[in-house]
Amino acid sequence: MLIHDGLILTMGDQPRVLPHHSIGVVDGLITFIRPAEEVNLEGWDEVMDGRGMAVMPGFINCHTHAAMSLMRGFADDLPLKEWLENFIWPSEAAFMNRKNVALGTRLALLEMIAAGTVMFADMYFFEDEVALACQQAGMRVLLGEGILDFKTPHFPNPDDAIAFALELASHYSNDPLIKVALAPHAVYTVSPSTLKKIAKLSADYHLPVHIHLAETRQEVEDCQKSFGVHPIDHLSNVGLLNDKLIAAHMVHVPSEYYSRLREAGVRIAHNHSANLKLASGFAPIPDYLKEKIITGLGTDGPASNNNLAIPIEWRHSSLVSKMMTGNPEAINAFEALYMATTGGARVLGVSDIIGSLEPGKAADIILISLNKPHLQPIYNIYSTLAYSMHPTDVDTVIINGRIVMRRRQMLTLDTEKILAEVNQVERQIAHYFHLNNSRNGKK
Amino acid sequence: MLIHDGLILTMGDQPRVLPHHSIGVVDGLITFIRPAEEVNLEGWDEVMDGRGMAVMPGFINCHTHAAMSLMRGFADDLPLKEWLENFIWPSEAAFMNRKNVALGTRLALLEMIAAGTVMFADMYFFEDEVALACQQAGMRVLLGEGILDFKTPHFPNPDDAIAFALELASHYSNDPLIKVALAPHAVYTVSPSTLKKIAKLSADYHLPVHIHLAETRQEVEDCQKSFGVHPIDHLSNVGLLNDKLIAAHMVHVPSEYYSRLREAGVRIAHNHSANLKLASGFAPIPDYLKEKIITGLGTDGPASNNNLAIPIEWRHSSLVSKMMTGNPEAINAFEALYMATTGGARVLGVSDIIGSLEPGKAADIILISLNKPHLQPIYNIYSTLAYSMHPTDVDTVIINGRIVMRRRQMLTLDTEKILAEVNQVERQIAHYFHLNNSRNGKK
Repeated sequence: MLIHDGLILTMGDQPRVLPHHSIGVVDGLITFIRPAEEVNLEGWDEVMDGRGMAVMPGFINCHTHAAMSLMRGFADDLPLKEWLENFIWPSEAAFMNRKNVALGTRLALLEMIAAGTVMFADMYFFEDEVALACQQAGMRVLLGEGILDFKTPHFPNPDDAIAFALELASHYSNDPLIKVALAPHAVYTVSPSTLKKIAKLSADYHLPVHIHLAETRQEVEDCQKSFGVHPIDHLSNVGLLNDKLIAAHMVHVPSEYYSRLREAGVRIAHNHSANLKLASGFAPIPDYLKEKIITGLGTDGPASNNNLAIPIEWRHSSLVSKMMTGNPEAINAFEALYMATTGGARVLGVSDIIGSLEPGKAADIILISLNKPHLQPIYNIYSTLAYSMHPTDVDTVIINGRIVMRRRQMLTLDTEKILAEVNQVERQIAHYFHLNNSRNGKK
Repeated sequence: MLIHDGLILTMGDQPRVLPHHSIGVVDGLITFIRPAEEVNLEGWDEVMDGRGMAVMPGFINCHTHAAMSLMRGFADDLPLKEWLENFIWPSEAAFMNRKNVALGTRLALLEMIAAGTVMFADMYFFEDEVALACQQAGMRVLLGEGILDFKTPHFPNPDDAIAFALELASHYSNDPLIKVALAPHAVYTVSPSTLKKIAKLSADYHLPVHIHLAETRQEVEDCQKSFGVHPIDHLSNVGLLNDKLIAAHMVHVPSEYYSRLREAGVRIAHNHSANLKLASGFAPIPDYLKEKIITGLGTDGPASNNNLAIPIEWRHSSLVSKMMTGNPEAINAFEALYMATTGGARVLGVSDIIGSLEPGKAADIILISLNKPHLQPIYNIYSTLAYSMHPTDVDTVIINGRIVMRRRQMLTLDTEKILAEVNQVERQIAHYFHLNNSRNGKK
């Protein structure tokens, strides 16, 4: 495949923009990036017109619960406790079976691909279904079967969930798209002994560990009460504060931890919208970037965002950071896009494969259509994308050399069929929660 | 025209959702809203299919500088002083002539209509050109010729600008779409004597007064130094603190002013993204809503946002309000949409005409396409629109009974021609500011 004559943003550690360049792709890998005029157009299976397009690495969603898309917007504007206890947990118990996880994940995949995402880190249940959905969609994923001390929709106890994660890791060890993490839910839902076990398995099997960390003030206070330390120290004590740790949220982190986080190689998944929507707080992302702590973006689950679109996250995060620090230079346009691509790839441990465009890396490439009123004029392509683009400006998505969306048409999933099935589940959930008319807008 | 069988959100002061209802439009006015099954489909010039659509009042942008779209993104991530002095002011002096204001306004109109806006309050120069562009586009506008103590691109002194505004008001006094305000720029750019003159003319001619107010800490401090009072007291002293005042920004407002603002009937235009992007601060919108102060949404100019999309503003503002107050109920989904419609109409003084759907009001109606993965399932239509919709979900826009966008096709403006002209101006501005390659992404 040849992507011909686009405005290429290679990403990587430094800004690099190549106008009128072409990218050659063979067997799923980028083979060259050259000035368009030097490229021979003959002999390719497919030549994709890059004119009027920004061409860049696809976006990486470092933390989500994809199947929760089925619960999008059914319990908004509520305090966390009421949200969890009266809505999310009961609905998970009643509805989040294998079949609905398969469906909800497909709904999420439609949305993620449409917004340019090429890989996501999931944390949920029935992750074998998530794997199958991603294989069908052609999406990269880091699977995270949720490990909790109590019963989950999938397993009665944490040991069974851990054993299942190891099975998944073994089963997909050579898969080009699917990787596996150990995913203990949080320090308040997983005991120290289970966390220690996970730390050992992570080292033995070279598996990343994906956890919610320092998300709310409550979590920090409870950890202090139960274990006498901040959640970060608690993870250190159980052997998890290392370069395999993917720490989602990291909102309540005193600055004295920064150097330890950097030195340990901890990776942070920042979930801006969810932190705001649940009023958890402001994560000090400008500090993390300044301190060179590995940082990427996540959307969290669609029930607490309520989107899976990375472009919304970076714009929002950048603007709030400017306001909170009083510094309009906080998280500049390049840094915003960096977190969504190269930074995210480092967080998920795949920066040797994706996250920037260069020969030898996988062809995880998106084309963004620029000839639209809200994107013109263009003085600085990073600013245009960081502050003006809508998720729907993503035109074409290529993952591992396979076109999964072309000119906004999904090629791997059946949108109509999925939406029809989602509509049926919507009726069931609305009925269960006595939302008499599911679209009534009461509240 | 008949809009048939949609999911209707009337807006107004209370949530009201009418599934499977139809709206009759005759001579630009809404004549009825009835259950779809009771409506006769015969005899209409046009029957618009509302199935799978949310049907609601169009959005109102209470503060912008539309023509500054030509400067979108050419100077981001900079401190306000550097942004203004090295980029915005020099570019206005060099490029914001009559021709480019006409062009930039048309570019902005394309973007605003595409995101569902049906009326905006402008504050810029050559507002006669803005009026012509709006007439062509079929857009409602509140014109605001900028009044400053010093020379503007249009006039050498404030008296000429004031005289021109009065001429515009007289000329358009019976226009269905075009209204006129007096638009003194700010307390730091317009002298007390000019402000007093404007106060008298506002009363004599029943004209709203549109001004930047309490935007930055610097403004408040300088006003204290120059006049010994907060900018709100300063406006009170010159006779402007009344129900004709449209106060844009209102970021730095101590709570002791709230009751005075409510009692005076002051209207607030909240510009969320710009306040954050320029690090001006957080406007206490949850307080304004609780205190029943009239509040709507604006985008500010595209050079400091960098969008003109109201759906981005409400989502962002609601989420940041939850975080800043620690209260996930702050600015709920209905309130967010209220500010964008009914609230905005009250801010611009047109709530007798637009801002809610009811018989007798003007047909300023938008259709939002709901059958998309990122908008499904729907448990509460307010949540769906407030937190999940993208600006591009707006499918059709009707202003005063005229269809200006249908199925995302612009019907009144020539997109290609406008973008081609914008591209030429982009080259000139990039050359002037030595952005060697205008799309190079340096910074």
